[in-house]
Amino acid sequence: MPEVRPIVWDDEGLQLLDQRLLPDREVYIPCKNVEDVAKYIKEMVVRGAPAIGVSAAFGMVLAAGKLAGNCPNGQGNGSGSAAPPGFFEGLRDAAVLLKGTRPTAVNLNWAVERILKKADSLKGENPGKIHKELALEAVKIYEEDIEVNEQIGRLGAGLIGKGSTILTHCNAGALATAGYGTALGVIRSAFAQGKDIRVFADETRPFLQGSRLTVWELQKEGIPVTLIVDSAAGYYMSRKHIHYVIVGADRVAANGDTANKIGTYSLAVLARENNIPFYVAVPFSTFDFSIKSGEDIVVEERDHREVTHLNNTLLTVPGIPAGNPAFDITPAALVSAFITELGVLHKPNRAKLAEFFRLE
Amino acid sequence: MPEVRPIVWDDEGLQLLDQRLLPDREVYIPCKNVEDVAKYIKEMVVRGAPAIGVSAAFGMVLAAGKLAGNCPNGQGNGSGSAAPPGFFEGLRDAAVLLKGTRPTAVNLNWAVERILKKADSLKGENPGKIHKELALEAVKIYEEDIEVNEQIGRLGAGLIGKGSTILTHCNAGALATAGYGTALGVIRSAFAQGKDIRVFADETRPFLQGSRLTVWELQKEGIPVTLIVDSAAGYYMSRKHIHYVIVGADRVAANGDTANKIGTYSLAVLARENNIPFYVAVPFSTFDFSIKSGEDIVVEERDHREVTHLNNTLLTVPGIPAGNPAFDITPAALVSAFITELGVLHKPNRAKLAEFFRLE
Repeated sequence: MPEVRPIVWDDEGLQLLDQRLLPDREVYIPCKNVEDVAKYIKEMVVRGAPAIGVSAAFGMVLAAGKLAGNCPNGQGNGSGSAAPPGFFEGLRDAAVLLKGTRPTAVNLNWAVERILKKADSLKGENPGKIHKELALEAVKIYEEDIEVNEQIGRLGAGLIGKGSTILTHCNAGALATAGYGTALGVIRSAFAQGKDIRVFADETRPFLQGSRLTVWELQKEGIPVTLIVDSAAGYYMSRKHIHYVIVGADRVAANGDTANKIGTYSLAVLARENNIPFYVAVPFSTFDFSIKSGEDIVVEERDHREVTHLNNTLLTVPGIPAGNPAFDITPAALVSAFITELGVLHKPNRAKLAEFFRLE
Repeated sequence: MPEVRPIVWDDEGLQLLDQRLLPDREVYIPCKNVEDVAKYIKEMVVRGAPAIGVSAAFGMVLAAGKLAGNCPNGQGNGSGSAAPPGFFEGLRDAAVLLKGTRPTAVNLNWAVERILKKADSLKGENPGKIHKELALEAVKIYEEDIEVNEQIGRLGAGLIGKGSTILTHCNAGALATAGYGTALGVIRSAFAQGKDIRVFADETRPFLQGSRLTVWELQKEGIPVTLIVDSAAGYYMSRKHIHYVIVGADRVAANGDTANKIGTYSLAVLARENNIPFYVAVPFSTFDFSIKSGEDIVVEERDHREVTHLNNTLLTVPGIPAGNPAFDITPAALVSAFITELGVLHKPNRAKLAEFFRLE
């Protein structure tokens, strides 16, 4: 089991590690129903595209459990009559609720759709049976995510030279996934291979995922990390202190344009300016081939209080207008390679991606 | 008189507006001696290259006053015997103390040297007379700085189109100077000309000069401003929301390489990537022709607590290493133009700068 477990699913149901309280306190919040899960995704108790996807899958299971309980033929196991149309309508409502929480991360859609598809394949079964099967499917999504990350880590570590320094942004770690992490998975794997690496972590304003989460994860494992403000990354690149930039992603369009945490685009431009490889470590589930290019990716605008306040302390003049885009789009041309569980794709573009994933 | 007065020199002596407390409170701290001035520059009670220069000039005057008081022929006005060698040695000690406070801002050197030169020109005069003359010279530096900024503002405003949006970083405003400001001087002037401009202000981690100071200054004058985190600047550039980037500078080398607040280099790279003019508004006193290129500019590394803490609240894991370079270097090739009181110099380089300032 990975040491850092943002999502716990056991006999007591679903619990989410409250990432808003890290690194000060490690508190797990129980989720009683799909409404709780939606709320906690929206409020960033859990964040990171893969972790949101896995949490949403369990949210669907909670919805199915409740719907089954409400059916006259409800909680049985294999016996009883087929689930009524209301059961499936209820699942679809839960899907809409979950998908509406964060618009940019595609894994959310992907995981919810996978659960819905599984439910559809079980039409004719009784609600209790469907609920149990959906729970197994969600656990499969969870376990696959960890396996995928470990594979991304292994493949990515092959790109990293000994004694090098890696810059990462936001948190694409165990906390952003079911475990192990994407960008931090590569870093973990390289470190485990004895590659003697060091990490620069951007603090990642406004939510401070870097200073609160990435630093916490890396320190737990003894991986040397230095914290910097986001705007210092260019300085360290220009002074040759950084050999690779590795980030995760929230959604990748069919042409390779990549949505990730605000500030990623700046790092990609700076990396190219300084001849530093810019890698995006990302599972196949984050690719959205229904979207042609980054222009069509919806960028979530979050509460301006995240910019104007910190821990309820006003940082600026009262009432000042603020902008708070949570993500930006890095054009594919700036991505040196995608590191996926299916392999490393260098200099990606639309045609290469289609061929790589055998979509044509 | 400018509305925002970071430095007050009157019958009661020198007072500095404590910029660490803005925008919450407007508190002036009296400076009794040169040691106070040095301390407050170091602690960033006063900051911004021109404001540091002006404050240091007054610091030299305070030193001269104390030295004169200690002389047997001390506080007289025009009568009495010549200042003893100890008087000039004391002034030189004060200069060393002041110059050691912040290594990157060149105006500090420039202003201190100007006062020392004035003192040297008065050898043979009695200490009281020298003290008074130095006070007049410091006031001249103060007043010239405002005039210079107003001229920079006028010239810079000519570059700004109607209805445009300007991004600025850190605070190159009235607070960073004796008054009016360099980058914000251009913005003030364009606004006063009815150019219907809007401003994006980077918050400028770690010290938050943008959210605390720039936003405060602009709001006082009714100039529309939107606050963003530093790493969102690239997003807004890529979405065509920004038409110009204007910043100040702390030191410009003979070839045009420009030291300014950490994050400036990133903005310059992003501006070029997005075909946005990148202007540096800067007085002649910020050019340092003794330094060949940016490689030779000393970048101040400040207390890591600025990165790991905010208002004494720990933002990260206890004891984590941090990097906190206060400045970065923007290569001259990324500067669209220098806006100086002597004119606008487009596409600067070493030869053009030497010719422009008639150094050859």
